[in-house]
Amino acid sequence: MNRHTGQQATLFDAEPLRLDGGALLSPVTVGYETYGNLNADRTNAILICHALTGDQFVASNHPITGKPGWWTRLVGPGKLIDTEKYFVVCSNVLGSCLGTTGPGSTNPATGKAYGLDFPVITIRDMVRVQAALLDHLGVGTLMAVIGGSMGGMQVLEWLTTYPERLHSAVALATAARHTAQNIAFHEVGRQAIMADPNWHDGRYYDHAAKPDKGLSVARMTAHITYLSEDALTRKFGRNLQARDAVSFGFDADFQVESYLRHQGSTFVDRFDANSYLYVTRALDYLDIAGRHEGRLADAFRRAAHVRCCVISFTSDWLYPTVENKRIVHAMNAAGVPVSFAEIDAPHGHDSFLLDVPEMDHMLTGFMTAAARARGLEA
Amino acid sequence: MNRHTGQQATLFDAEPLRLDGGALLSPVTVGYETYGNLNADRTNAILICHALTGDQFVASNHPITGKPGWWTRLVGPGKLIDTEKYFVVCSNVLGSCLGTTGPGSTNPATGKAYGLDFPVITIRDMVRVQAALLDHLGVGTLMAVIGGSMGGMQVLEWLTTYPERLHSAVALATAARHTAQNIAFHEVGRQAIMADPNWHDGRYYDHAAKPDKGLSVARMTAHITYLSEDALTRKFGRNLQARDAVSFGFDADFQVESYLRHQGSTFVDRFDANSYLYVTRALDYLDIAGRHEGRLADAFRRAAHVRCCVISFTSDWLYPTVENKRIVHAMNAAGVPVSFAEIDAPHGHDSFLLDVPEMDHMLTGFMTAAARARGLEA
Repeated sequence: MNRHTGQQATLFDAEPLRLDGGALLSPVTVGYETYGNLNADRTNAILICHALTGDQFVASNHPITGKPGWWTRLVGPGKLIDTEKYFVVCSNVLGSCLGTTGPGSTNPATGKAYGLDFPVITIRDMVRVQAALLDHLGVGTLMAVIGGSMGGMQVLEWLTTYPERLHSAVALATAARHTAQNIAFHEVGRQAIMADPNWHDGRYYDHAAKPDKGLSVARMTAHITYLSEDALTRKFGRNLQARDAVSFGFDADFQVESYLRHQGSTFVDRFDANSYLYVTRALDYLDIAGRHEGRLADAFRRAAHVRCCVISFTSDWLYPTVENKRIVHAMNAAGVPVSFAEIDAPHGHDSFLLDVPEMDHMLTGFMTAAARARGLEA
Repeated sequence: MNRHTGQQATLFDAEPLRLDGGALLSPVTVGYETYGNLNADRTNAILICHALTGDQFVASNHPITGKPGWWTRLVGPGKLIDTEKYFVVCSNVLGSCLGTTGPGSTNPATGKAYGLDFPVITIRDMVRVQAALLDHLGVGTLMAVIGGSMGGMQVLEWLTTYPERLHSAVALATAARHTAQNIAFHEVGRQAIMADPNWHDGRYYDHAAKPDKGLSVARMTAHITYLSEDALTRKFGRNLQARDAVSFGFDADFQVESYLRHQGSTFVDRFDANSYLYVTRALDYLDIAGRHEGRLADAFRRAAHVRCCVISFTSDWLYPTVENKRIVHAMNAAGVPVSFAEIDAPHGHDSFLLDVPEMDHMLTGFMTAAARARGLEA
């Protein structure tokens, strides 16, 4: 899985990484991309955190699919996150499969892939690795940490764990905990992977066949939760796929079936099934308030100096406005300055990845003010 | 699959059943249950239509699980649907697996199970078989046809196909078409079944192993859609299953995971994987307005003499109020007398199966008036 993965750093080789689950991990390789240059004052670094199946290729072509980066719309020279002004870093999360250590990496103790011997990780563990990468890159304080969905959860864990290294923080379409329904959808995906006989209890790396069918079903299920019911209706409705009438069979008669099958089958080319297990587990374990006896505000008390921005989308039913508002209320209670907007967008959870002008306006205003406060020309 | 299935009738042996897909089916065996007695005037018959994975054991113990019938709360002597007053019929739908002909039945042409040689069916095909069963039982006109979810869709198809045989009709938590999101969830379930190597292209009946894992994942996915997000939160939240802390592993740490796994694993004991493919396909094909150039009202024009009742539930996101209202608006446009209520219930789609007093009040009032209009003592 290590071809074309951009830059890599090896961290935690002298001192191992101590994980929330108690295990030690050493070394930890991190795949990452940078855009722009760190200024002399080291005040212009921005960390972008990616979502569940995202990657570090935020503004560069994906090494496997060849497709443009997932946020090229916003990140680049002269763009909203201007790489002529900022030094942008994005790294593949711990447990994933695009250059960063995960269950598909070689376990130094055995010389074989970890498989299920890889320790279960948390969102905070991902953030610890990001902090070590920034040390490695000579970045002390971040002008901003930005992320949507699971990326937003990393932003929240930055605020709880390394608030002293933050100047501002932007969390989009996210939550401070996984709900029962969130866990339920992930559990279905994990069961689909584990039900695939090619999974072999996670030891499939030496086999020719991978658990592609199970991973594909997991992706299809999750994908439904990324789009609103309304978006599916507008995009596909009951339109038929390349036929005039239903076939009275089990082919993909409907466009929505064809679309989902495509989402599933292309996903397996770029993602590792065990990584899907580990990263979804990290999401399910997220419960920031749970670490503070149920008081989410206590998690943010050390972040009162960080300018925050939280954005939710009306049609997001995966991490709906109510979950984003919980974060905002806790920040307010902790004295953290926070701008919040629920933006009217019909696309569902994926809105944060799409062209939503109102989101751009809000981000532009926030970033401009944050840059000025940081002493950077706006 | 034919043990303990209650009563059975063999229909369409002289004249085959012509299906919507064009295929002919002969014979068709129907598993059914009856409660109470048909009166001398033959005016007191009620047909109850079951949901996707439901069955004819509406008020009697399930032959496989031993559990009480799925609507014993409402059906029985002295109950809301009083079997001392009404002759209640409930039959297993065409394509299912509890006594009625489906893909697991023997294909007379080969002497083996149909498997995927079974023709794809529609909700209207199910209703045609029910009409033939009523002929067999000597029931001409129904005092009422009643059903929730897929049962409600059968009620709608009764109104479009045999309105002259209806006096009243009750449809709960249903829709006149499957939306893109409805189709998407079903497609994920079908793909999970078809991905199971024990499925063998539907020819697993001679094998010791059935596609239980795939069917279990399909059931787990669907089950999430039957409950509201709020119901999952209230029922399970992030509660742990028989442990004090998360395990940092892939066991069912959370109660919601344990619950879903249980739903999946018990389902496979009572349901056939191919039947799941066929019945979900019938649901996805439902688009009553589509048969009438998009004008749903036209489907109900012959039913202006039938008293109708439509009930939706606030927390139902599978067949939400907006879909039920489409039915009501069409009925109104067609001059069909219809009572409608959106009932405030937190349980999600499954509300129609649960103890919701406001639903009982509405049904009691409707049934009493319908019985009086039918000349039965209320």
